[in-house]
Amino acid sequence: MNPVLIVKTLSFLMLIISGFMLIPAAIALACGETRELISFIVVILPLSALSGWFVLSFRKRKTEAFSTRDGFIFVTASWLAASVAGSLPFIISGAIPSFPDAFFETVSGFSTTGASILTDVDCLPRSMLFWRSFTHWLGGMGIVVLAVAVLPLLGIGGLQLINAESPGPTVDRITPRIADTAKILWIIYIGFTVAQTALLMIAGMDLFDALTHTFGTLATGGFSTKNAGVGHYDSAAIEIIITVFMLLASISFSLHYRALTGRLRSLAGETEAKVFLLIFIISTMAVALSVYGESYPSFGESLRHAAFQAASILTTTGFATADFEQWPFFAQGVLFLLMFIGGSSGSTAGGIKVFRIVILLKQAFIEMLFLIHPRGIFTLKVNNGVVRKDLVYSVAGFFFLYIFMLLCTSLVVASSGYDLTTSLTTALATLGNIGPGFGEVGPTNNYAFFPDYVKWFLSFAMLVGRLELYTVLIILTPEFWRRR
Amino acid sequence: MNPVLIVKTLSFLMLIISGFMLIPAAIALACGETRELISFIVVILPLSALSGWFVLSFRKRKTEAFSTRDGFIFVTASWLAASVAGSLPFIISGAIPSFPDAFFETVSGFSTTGASILTDVDCLPRSMLFWRSFTHWLGGMGIVVLAVAVLPLLGIGGLQLINAESPGPTVDRITPRIADTAKILWIIYIGFTVAQTALLMIAGMDLFDALTHTFGTLATGGFSTKNAGVGHYDSAAIEIIITVFMLLASISFSLHYRALTGRLRSLAGETEAKVFLLIFIISTMAVALSVYGESYPSFGESLRHAAFQAASILTTTGFATADFEQWPFFAQGVLFLLMFIGGSSGSTAGGIKVFRIVILLKQAFIEMLFLIHPRGIFTLKVNNGVVRKDLVYSVAGFFFLYIFMLLCTSLVVASSGYDLTTSLTTALATLGNIGPGFGEVGPTNNYAFFPDYVKWFLSFAMLVGRLELYTVLIILTPEFWRRR
Repeated sequence: MNPVLIVKTLSFLMLIISGFMLIPAAIALACGETRELISFIVVILPLSALSGWFVLSFRKRKTEAFSTRDGFIFVTASWLAASVAGSLPFIISGAIPSFPDAFFETVSGFSTTGASILTDVDCLPRSMLFWRSFTHWLGGMGIVVLAVAVLPLLGIGGLQLINAESPGPTVDRITPRIADTAKILWIIYIGFTVAQTALLMIAGMDLFDALTHTFGTLATGGFSTKNAGVGHYDSAAIEIIITVFMLLASISFSLHYRALTGRLRSLAGETEAKVFLLIFIISTMAVALSVYGESYPSFGESLRHAAFQAASILTTTGFATADFEQWPFFAQGVLFLLMFIGGSSGSTAGGIKVFRIVILLKQAFIEMLFLIHPRGIFTLKVNNGVVRKDLVYSVAGFFFLYIFMLLCTSLVVASSGYDLTTSLTTALATLGNIGPGFGEVGPTNNYAFFPDYVKWFLSFAMLVGRLELYTVLIILTPEFWRRR
Repeated sequence: MNPVLIVKTLSFLMLIISGFMLIPAAIALACGETRELISFIVVILPLSALSGWFVLSFRKRKTEAFSTRDGFIFVTASWLAASVAGSLPFIISGAIPSFPDAFFETVSGFSTTGASILTDVDCLPRSMLFWRSFTHWLGGMGIVVLAVAVLPLLGIGGLQLINAESPGPTVDRITPRIADTAKILWIIYIGFTVAQTALLMIAGMDLFDALTHTFGTLATGGFSTKNAGVGHYDSAAIEIIITVFMLLASISFSLHYRALTGRLRSLAGETEAKVFLLIFIISTMAVALSVYGESYPSFGESLRHAAFQAASILTTTGFATADFEQWPFFAQGVLFLLMFIGGSSGSTAGGIKVFRIVILLKQAFIEMLFLIHPRGIFTLKVNNGVVRKDLVYSVAGFFFLYIFMLLCTSLVVASSGYDLTTSLTTALATLGNIGPGFGEVGPTNNYAFFPDYVKWFLSFAMLVGRLELYTVLIILTPEFWRRR
């Protein structure tokens, strides 16, 4: 363990975050939101001073490497520290006076969940709305860098699969060094941000709305600046743009890099992206056929709402244009099923992830082949490469732990007096970083009514889900802290 | 493949079943239920004649062995054929006039699920009530023999674990030959039946009720002969007797054999049974504390209902003494959680089974140890024996397939217009062979209202769950039928 290095790196992260806070501070200044401006300054000054001092005072030490153990601590601590720091402006300005609420909201932001305890966002000052959506964007970028460049090194739940097994240009090691990889990912992310913002403005949004909704989309977060969410605009063009970018944000950013650098041919074998899009198309059709004639008179309108909602849930974004709890139960069942899937690995999406589902399905099939031919030898292939057995193990372990955490979280929610549908989908929506669920946490509801202990636990669940379970849970085992 | 042998063995099974039908026929005769008597005779005569003819005509062939493939076909076909034959008296007598309904009820009986499409059992003729409960008893015995003696040979979902890995007296191979094993299991089963029936009669039930409720208990089925179920008697003594026998029936029958033959010492290391009882105790306490003061004024009464209901759901029996949907949501959440567990392997209980949960939990923990110490070597031990990696695989594959089937079944139910809670718990209650769920299929409801296609699918789900998924699903793959 190397506490000095961890603290130094965390301080560096805090310095960056306090730097990013200058943007909402500037917005507060421009909009004349004095109270909010003061709140940001009150946070930025001591935070940057303290973290800057830490960074500088430990500066001259010789180069040190992070151990795997340090990696786990750093990753968890960084999301935690960012959430605490990020919640301070909400508390100080009085936008969200209670700490559990503000912490929940900020964890929800950085974890790109999009579950909100706010009952009225329309009345929130612009600088606060911006900061809220901005946490999505920062968290989204953080998770892409983490998933593509850091987590595979830690060997979490099968994420190492891709770099270990893909033939040809390895997906994870876009470039050999993490810093370079991160830089490329930032460029793609910023490129998408500029593109979507521009398109949304062309479609009729003002710059502020376009930017905040772009943050919510690309991070697959789901915070909106309107009480009615994306439904507020009631514009097919806006919905189509957001649908497309939700899907893009849920496809591995490594693929985007390869696509943008012209290596289109290497994309043909990408099982995960293909299955992801197939799931999207099938579920959209299923939902559209279910709501057609029941909730909407025309098939076009049915398709529009179905595609948006299927994309929103599958990509774990959680935007809503319609109250899908009013839809036929079959359509709701399809969305419920999508909650168990999630986006692709190496993207900003949460959930179990498509590649894990693919591996588990293939493994279950191989298990059957093995029963038919007990002496047969079967190999599990993804993207034309053989998947090593220990990776399948890792994925299977992840899946079990996910369902286990899901049921435990449901029980905690139920303990506060909520029905089965609410409890289970609250757990799904937080652990999978989706946002809305069914029942009391449906698309027109929020998380305000839960007692504080449930909010704390759900904040924990959002972090656990976001950081691929093991990263956080491992720190809670005594074995992690035992010296060997 | 050996179709002749399969047909011959199936015919033998049909001969046995038509023989067993003589008992309800005799009851019909004794009670003066002419219509029912005729219905049984109309089934017994041609069925026994036809199957007897088949058995005799193929008699003199040389000894032939079942291949693994034949085993899968035979097991699935036997449950299917028994359910079709068993449903005939219901249809012919007019007790359950519709075939999908009668088939559902009989599958529910033989699979020891206990989900019923009957809205009023009080008015059913005694011979029909007896036959309905008797299908539980026969199915329960069938599954114990299957689980202990046959499925391990087929290598299903980790069930081979126990005989392959346990040290000392192997659990599965109580005696080397299947026929001998089956005989011992029958003796234990009949012994339990006599004991429970006698105790229930001492507690105040008449012979008929005692016998039918014993069938429902030992098979962990759940069919009652009263509309109010076990709650009808409102007797603490009866509930305690049933609770104890539900738990006994959910513990591996191999353990009972060892206990009865005095090898008590070898039981000490039995992880599955210990964990099973621990889960029962913890969930009983949790439910009792939740309902105390809320649903029942005294703690004693709370404990009584909590223990009965926790045992009923955990053992996948499904008897009810209270409408647990009126309980606080935390208590409901605990019962919901128990629905994902089920009883022990080698018992009459359904569900995922405790030993699979134990293995998956241990595996998830090992996965974490491995992340902390990437070069470490960790072995998964159960009952002091090392569990082979391919068995963990098998269990992990089973778990994924279970959740997958669960969600698919939920979607089918939802497609008929039922809410999430109803859809999901209907799937859980049928796939896990439990019986009651939540929502529209709660303990005071039944399955009568579902459209026929849902009843067919749920019948399928009950069979799939009962036969440990793979046995049935494997037959649906093209690979199974391909010649090599």
